[in-house]
Amino acid sequence: MELGLVGLGKMGGNMRERIRRAGHTVIGYDRNADLADVHSLEELVGKLSGPRVVWVMVPAGEPTQSTIDELAKLLEPGDVVVDGGNSRWTDDEKHAEELAAQGIGFVDCGVSGGVWGLENGYALMYGGDAEHVAQVQPVFDALKPEGDFGSVHAGKAGAGHFAKMVHNGIEYAMMQAYAEGWELLEKADSVTDVREVFRSWQDGTVIRSWLLDLAVNALDEDEHLEKLRGCAQDSGEGRWTVEAAIDNAVPLPAITASLFARFASRQEDSRQMKMIAALRNQFGGHAVEKK
Amino acid sequence: MELGLVGLGKMGGNMRERIRRAGHTVIGYDRNADLADVHSLEELVGKLSGPRVVWVMVPAGEPTQSTIDELAKLLEPGDVVVDGGNSRWTDDEKHAEELAAQGIGFVDCGVSGGVWGLENGYALMYGGDAEHVAQVQPVFDALKPEGDFGSVHAGKAGAGHFAKMVHNGIEYAMMQAYAEGWELLEKADSVTDVREVFRSWQDGTVIRSWLLDLAVNALDEDEHLEKLRGCAQDSGEGRWTVEAAIDNAVPLPAITASLFARFASRQEDSRQMKMIAALRNQFGGHAVEKK
Amino acid sequence: MELGLVGLGKMGGNMRERIRRAGHTVIGYDRNADLADVHSLEELVGKLSGPRVVWVMVPAGEPTQSTIDELAKLLEPGDVVVDGGNSRWTDDEKHAEELAAQGIGFVDCGVSGGVWGLENGYALMYGGDAEHVAQVQPVFDALKPEGDFGSVHAGKAGAGHFAKMVHNGIEYAMMQAYAEGWELLEKADSVTDVREVFRSWQDGTVIRSWLLDLAVNALDEDEHLEKLRGCAQDSGEGRWTVEAAIDNAVPLPAITASLFARFASRQEDSRQMKMIAALRNQFGGHAVEKK
Amino acid sequence: MELGLVGLGKMGGNMRERIRRAGHTVIGYDRNADLADVHSLEELVGKLSGPRVVWVMVPAGEPTQSTIDELAKLLEPGDVVVDGGNSRWTDDEKHAEELAAQGIGFVDCGVSGGVWGLENGYALMYGGDAEHVAQVQPVFDALKPEGDFGSVHAGKAGAGHFAKMVHNGIEYAMMQAYAEGWELLEKADSVTDVREVFRSWQDGTVIRSWLLDLAVNALDEDEHLEKLRGCAQDSGEGRWTVEAAIDNAVPLPAITASLFARFASRQEDSRQMKMIAALRNQFGGHAVEKK
Repeated sequence: MELGLVGLGKMGGNMRERIRRAGHTVIGYDRNADLADVHSLEELVGKLSGPRVVWVMVPAGEPTQSTIDELAKLLEPGDVVVDGGNSRWTDDEKHAEELAAQGIGFVDCGVSGGVWGLENGYALMYGGDAEHVAQVQPVFDALKPEGDFGSVHAGKAGAGHFAKMVHNGIEYAMMQAYAEGWELLEKADSVTDVREVFRSWQDGTVIRSWLLDLAVNALDEDEHLEKLRGCAQDSGEGRWTVEAAIDNAVPLPAITASLFARFASRQEDSRQMKMIAALRNQFGGHAVEKK
Repeated sequence: MELGLVGLGKMGGNMRERIRRAGHTVIGYDRNADLADVHSLEELVGKLSGPRVVWVMVPAGEPTQSTIDELAKLLEPGDVVVDGGNSRWTDDEKHAEELAAQGIGFVDCGVSGGVWGLENGYALMYGGDAEHVAQVQPVFDALKPEGDFGSVHAGKAGAGHFAKMVHNGIEYAMMQAYAEGWELLEKADSVTDVREVFRSWQDGTVIRSWLLDLAVNALDEDEHLEKLRGCAQDSGEGRWTVEAAIDNAVPLPAITASLFARFASRQEDSRQMKMIAALRNQFGGHAVEKK
Repeated sequence: MELGLVGLGKMGGNMRERIRRAGHTVIGYDRNADLADVHSLEELVGKLSGPRVVWVMVPAGEPTQSTIDELAKLLEPGDVVVDGGNSRWTDDEKHAEELAAQGIGFVDCGVSGGVWGLENGYALMYGGDAEHVAQVQPVFDALKPEGDFGSVHAGKAGAGHFAKMVHNGIEYAMMQAYAEGWELLEKADSVTDVREVFRSWQDGTVIRSWLLDLAVNALDEDEHLEKLRGCAQDSGEGRWTVEAAIDNAVPLPAITASLFARFASRQEDSRQMKMIAALRNQFGGHAVEKK
Repeated sequence: MELGLVGLGKMGGNMRERIRRAGHTVIGYDRNADLADVHSLEELVGKLSGPRVVWVMVPAGEPTQSTIDELAKLLEPGDVVVDGGNSRWTDDEKHAEELAAQGIGFVDCGVSGGVWGLENGYALMYGGDAEHVAQVQPVFDALKPEGDFGSVHAGKAGAGHFAKMVHNGIEYAMMQAYAEGWELLEKADSVTDVREVFRSWQDGTVIRSWLLDLAVNALDEDEHLEKLRGCAQDSGEGRWTVEAAIDNAVPLPAITASLFARFASRQEDSRQMKMIAALRNQFGGHAVEKK
């Protein structure tokens, strides 16, 4: 089939390659002309025969919004837009309604895979009406990993990004789990080779996983991670997961603890701990560290 | 080689079988005569040719302590005792010293595998002197999973149980991660098939793991887990992990949150939340639920 | 001075009384004619001489929005609207702009005091331009507690509700602190009179507070809180506090734990703990509680 | 009455002064001869007429243990030893039994008050048999704050230290509550004077407390706490509180979060966050901060 693909950065560029390898035609547009096959969205739409499928793979928020707004003017009834970026699920319903008003279908798709996706495939979670999903299905099949799993029609518009968001929330807590265990092992006097402990866990244990394999890779490169600073960014999905939990009154203690650990890791100095130090000083004359 | 095995319950019995399948001789003792090959520890020790290896696979605490005490009287210099039970790592050094005073070696071994171990092998983490570990190595090789990993000499006496304890702490937080994500997905209006979302995650995602496979198995048996009550036991290792972290001043927010979630899940009614309700009532005249 | 007061429920009614006791004129409107002094907002505005001050004390969200919309049509340049309800701070800037377009001033005010406010005064946190605050000042002075403190001009429009929201977030964690300590004391074998321990803490300790006094009151009424169910509502401000923290990348572990404890307390059965139980069952053949 | 007081450091010295002001005779011993009234425990015991009361106010652990051991040899049946130090409650039962074997009574007493105690009195929580408590009562009455509260016979031996330990656990979470709220307010654009917000809360709010007063004192000395580093020690009681909770399967999410925040605050660099950074780098090619 033919696909229009908007956004050819690290993710989009690799996805174009994987879809082409599966035998499909991809016409790519990017603001960076060096990456692009066409020079404008208008040209991209013009080159596709209808009913068209256009996959938007640009940053969430304003870039995605403006791209969809423009496509809404260019496309025709029966066409379908896929938002494969990291949009918040609350944007999807809005996009679906905006496009439906023009008779254009909308599918949201959460994409997992990072730098491994080109070779191993991308895990896909998508939401939307069955008829619109069906129009995109050959592309989903091209992108997904080999094997029985790796793609799912999760529900209505928004369900794809919601599922991907929860995936990332779970990822935060799993990473935190290994990280906490690793630090504790590194502190234990009796354990003389923490890396070998991690390595051994790759077979036969309850906690074997792909993330564990990656942890072993990382320790093989730098046994005590001495070259890294202990600070980590967060990407939005973790925050949204906690906000969705609050909206639904669902307690998420482990995922939230993982998010907060990242927040704290980025602080040069902790204001709240200054207040703790100040209070200790006030009531107990405890020694505090002055700057 | 020959192995004496004390404790032939669900774990010990399967381990005897797996070691025998590997071609070794196992003489098993259990207080339950129906399971045992010999009628006493004395008989067991008498049937083994020295230097002997005796694997203790009985409940942690008093049962393990009294078994080791008795073996200390029966064994001879050059023999080795393995504690393969769920002992707290702090007991191991004590046992090592007690046995060393008799010239007997000691190895502690954390064993993971549960009901899957007989067929798939048991992940093993052991600690002790290299010479003692070497005496047990053929048994470790018989028990461990096929594949490159699954067993590790983690360090000194105690390191095996410490590593296994941390494994279980990580396990708590990973289980909590999936559980939190699952509850949130079940609450989302847009997601119409949570089980299929979990199933899809088995390929290509960052969070694929053996625990995820088990979660899918569980959902296949009971899609919304309606047949289960939402309460979970904890087995000791989770508690010890948090205590070890406190001893080492290591923050473990996700693992501890997972432990506390289990504590709370077992309470018929929460005393602390009664106090919250009472305070709300005191200052705000808020409606509270009376029994 | 003269004040128009919209909303004469439990809070508004008591506030009208306290302001009147201070010698001011209050004209109150409520949809419930039995409580009201006038029959419509139009009549209320007509009875006030300008420049008018109208205090809106109705539920947050749509009721507050529609009241402010209507007042925007009835009031004149130079008048001031106060939102004293539990609005989210993000609504305040919107209201300030909407009213400023008509030349009408806006002040947001967080009010704490509950059932104790009529006699003891209400703690007030307000935000807005200095000139608009000055117009309301006599009412603030009438409402606030005696003593040196109890009211503050916290900053720009929105600052009042933001400060009140954080006040409530802190309140959640303080309540949780006492509640956790109380449950632990109730579990200790050696402690034979937990209520007397709490009572004793009212003098000389680091943790003496008004909330502690309330806890003692509650225990005097029901020593082990046996008449209450261990479940607690949350009122919005706790959720908003966590959301504001996420927006600002501030870790709030204790406040968030307190919010989640309330969420969990209201669940008949915990879905996430069902998943934990299911996973334990899958890998270990652990006994689980079936319904 | 007469009291023997062992340990005349900052706490013990002030306590001697307060007890003397109440008209009692205090004979003090300290290893530092400049502080002491007598030169040895033997001399101290010799100068007291029986039945004697000796208050031990030395560091927990070995110093307290060895002092009690020595007193057990010097004292006579009918005498009473008070441990007023920060001992773990689990030591008290041991001490009570050791002394009871000599016919000597034992009372444990948790003392709160810090640098404010000399003038304001010390909050006291004590445990032991009623007859032994009665022998110490005049000293308790001298030390306690004026007012109706401030001292309690909490239960059996160990109950005093247990209650004091829980007091400190609650204190950790209350301090954390204010600290989290303060950091969030400092981050809010709309709030222009955080210190005045804190000051205002001292009257009429739900969260007014002595700790809040201390927070205002601290902010008056250094409005944004710029002179302090954001790191805080912990003193043992917080750790013991969490351990006691684990022993009793009581969830303590807020108190534990507060303890972990202190642990994290003291780390130059966080090992666990290095692992998070390493994992992010492995799967996503995310930029990480190299040292």
